[in-house]
Amino acid sequence: MVKQERAARTRENLIRSAAEVFERDGYAVASLTAISSQAGVSNGALHFHFASKEALAREVEDAAADAVEKMAEGCRGSADTLLQSLVNATCRLLAAVAGDPVVRAGFKLGHDPSRKNAEGGLWRWWCGWVQDLVAQAQEEGELARGISPEDAAAAIVATTAGFEVLSTWDRDWLSRERAGRIWAFLLPLLSGSPDRTPAGPDGEERPAG
Amino acid sequence: MVKQERAARTRENLIRSAAEVFERDGYAVASLTAISSQAGVSNGALHFHFASKEALAREVEDAAADAVEKMAEGCRGSADTLLQSLVNATCRLLAAVAGDPVVRAGFKLGHDPSRKNAEGGLWRWWCGWVQDLVAQAQEEGELARGISPEDAAAAIVATTAGFEVLSTWDRDWLSRERAGRIWAFLLPLLSGSPDRTPAGPDGEERPAG
Repeated sequence: MVKQERAARTRENLIRSAAEVFERDGYAVASLTAISSQAGVSNGALHFHFASKEALAREVEDAAADAVEKMAEGCRGSADTLLQSLVNATCRLLAAVAGDPVVRAGFKLGHDPSRKNAEGGLWRWWCGWVQDLVAQAQEEGELARGISPEDAAAAIVATTAGFEVLSTWDRDWLSRERAGRIWAFLLPLLSGSPDRTPAGPDGEERPAG
Repeated sequence: MVKQERAARTRENLIRSAAEVFERDGYAVASLTAISSQAGVSNGALHFHFASKEALAREVEDAAADAVEKMAEGCRGSADTLLQSLVNATCRLLAAVAGDPVVRAGFKLGHDPSRKNAEGGLWRWWCGWVQDLVAQAQEEGELARGISPEDAAAAIVATTAGFEVLSTWDRDWLSRERAGRIWAFLLPLLSGSPDRTPAGPDGEERPAG
């Protein structure tokens, strides 16, 4: 393996290990020694790539943001309607929080009380993305009459954040089934079609609740 | 002031100070010295009342649970319908999270990643309470046809938890106006009365959204 490639792998390995340790111990308790040990590299190798714990936390957040933005943008045109694209994105977001330690830590670092620079991070981005898509859905005439796009976006963002935090002690909150259930509530209300059976991610039909 | 009364006040003062320090620093970083200093008492006085930081955290959670349970039970019979009682309880819960540092810390300690014994605490209790009230509402015929009480309760609990965590960096999520907005969405859906203007806490009429 050439030197550059090896360095890139070590860096990626360190970001993933940092995510795992941040989640396990919280930001304040997570030590650089625990992170390098989790990655199976020396402290020296860690310091070669990252100057501090805060630098590592920002890298985890950036890596999570890259993954989530790519996923969300991929969902934007994935369905016939913008609301169904939003269903797809929300379900995939919760699946990524469940399955990818970097994405999970990226969201959690944004509200870790022991991290002084926690300012919402990825949650702020998600908030803006949902607001944008819901506003577009309204322009396209997809929103039911009388639904304020701001309120619809706030409800969607709050529900997603709630699932993330409730999953801290009960992972069932991140199951595919639960994600489908949010939409069994919200989609008919947003689209003004109370009898519509909401689809699961990617338009797959779900049994009615 | 008699000795017992003074001891009770010191204890209460320490619980409130611990809540403030847990919120400011997170569980792991919060030190007993910072807590006694915040309370204006000696370390010795703190140790006379509480054996450890974990003991203090549990006291904060217990005090928060007492306050929230009392509030919620007071709301149970506060309105003509159980769903309106649930509106009242949710709005009051978010107001207590916004205004009472003990209640706020009580909820946050339940998902602090640096606290090994964090197991949901108050969130688990709220989950059970909402499930119970929604099930009762269904028995009374207040729920719309086709609404699963389990899913309705999950949506309400997730939204409440989302508001708490999003408020970490933006306190506007706990405003009275926002709380009213959740219900502008959920109540008509739960009760199957899409044109119903939801009331604010305690049945006070709110302007339509």
